[in-house]
Amino acid sequence: MTYCVGMLLDEGLVMAADTRTNAGLDSVGKFKKLHCWSNPGKGVFTLLTAGNLAVTQAVVSLLSEHASSKNSKDPDNLFAAKTMFQAARIVGRAIRAVRKIEGEQLGAKADAFSASFIFGGQIGKEVPRLFQIYTEGNFIEATPDTPFFQIGEHKYGKPILDRVARNDMKLGDAAKMVLVSFDSTLRSNLTVGLPIDMLTYEAGTLKFEHTKRIGPDDPYFKMLSTEWSKALRNAFSQIEAFDI
Amino acid sequence: MTYCVGMLLDEGLVMAADTRTNAGLDSVGKFKKLHCWSNPGKGVFTLLTAGNLAVTQAVVSLLSEHASSKNSKDPDNLFAAKTMFQAARIVGRAIRAVRKIEGEQLGAKADAFSASFIFGGQIGKEVPRLFQIYTEGNFIEATPDTPFFQIGEHKYGKPILDRVARNDMKLGDAAKMVLVSFDSTLRSNLTVGLPIDMLTYEAGTLKFEHTKRIGPDDPYFKMLSTEWSKALRNAFSQIEAFDI
Repeated sequence: MTYCVGMLLDEGLVMAADTRTNAGLDSVGKFKKLHCWSNPGKGVFTLLTAGNLAVTQAVVSLLSEHASSKNSKDPDNLFAAKTMFQAARIVGRAIRAVRKIEGEQLGAKADAFSASFIFGGQIGKEVPRLFQIYTEGNFIEATPDTPFFQIGEHKYGKPILDRVARNDMKLGDAAKMVLVSFDSTLRSNLTVGLPIDMLTYEAGTLKFEHTKRIGPDDPYFKMLSTEWSKALRNAFSQIEAFDI
Repeated sequence: MTYCVGMLLDEGLVMAADTRTNAGLDSVGKFKKLHCWSNPGKGVFTLLTAGNLAVTQAVVSLLSEHASSKNSKDPDNLFAAKTMFQAARIVGRAIRAVRKIEGEQLGAKADAFSASFIFGGQIGKEVPRLFQIYTEGNFIEATPDTPFFQIGEHKYGKPILDRVARNDMKLGDAAKMVLVSFDSTLRSNLTVGLPIDMLTYEAGTLKFEHTKRIGPDDPYFKMLSTEWSKALRNAFSQIEAFDI
């Protein structure tokens, strides 16, 4: 499986993905699930992927080929999009294009063609926007009411987001919250594994400056994991016991 | 859906279940999922149920009919079991009996015959034992390494159990922990709902003395929910922000 979180803030975007893939418990791999395309000063795009790796890699390759074509008339070139809505439709079309090629062969195993995506970015003077894009290529957009999306093994890490996530958080606090959510998921589910790829994007900069790979030796993540455990145990012990 | 937790402690058992059922979002009901049979001084049995309500109710009714037959030669009478292992096999047979009657009709919808159970209790001088019983009627037993089982919507509430659960906890602390796990689940998933039925059993007493229904107005649960939220937010704010 996979765990990815994308969050839309007044200050920008936080995008994070683990890197573990597995096809059966004895076929475990490490693949990047956080992808970026940027044309500094004009437009920046980032995509988190979950699901069938053959499908998600094909989608990413298709988007990359069109984006690097330098053809601004190409309707499938992300850099030709005028708005993030148009860009999200390009991603949706890429998913549909992959389904057209691979879907028939996978037809017998309907579940095999399954993939989900979180897509965020900013174009020109538009504010940053964030989308969750489904296997079918359709999508929904984040709003201040629901400023985050999760894909993959999302349940273990949802309670902390449900309690803490707000669109007016600082970028550093949102990234911290996302890492707490990953910590809970990593502890409870073997199919989600370190390292975590973390991207924080400051609205208006139109360039990706902060991408970090967080491995098991990352001092911040180790501190966060230890402190959070300690704090939870403390908090738990301070509440009075249930009176049986 | 449903959320149930059963925990085996040195001190006894903690069993808890929510009461919400749903067949579609517009067909929401309230049904008991925690069931008890007891013959004070001789044997006590408790069953948590998740899955298809028609299946789980039929299993419970079958067990109740045999248990109330007073026939100690009836191999399907829980009170005729000499050990909890034998009692768990009786529950397994009840599930198989229901499948034999209903399974064929549900055949076309293979998923429709799905149910899972947590079964605990104590017989005579044996220590209390706890089992997770599957749709197929086979089962596994809790040990000090893994003293708890969950069925239904188990992922949201698993991180706290993974961090805190130990077989040498006090009953009141284990019940508190289980309620924290329910609180996280209730906040993140609409298909799990109050009230919660909570049973705590003291090893060796061979009678059920502590059963409580915890509704939205329960002062302890309200306190726990508020304090836990506050403690989480405090703990979160005390960890330094991620340095983007």
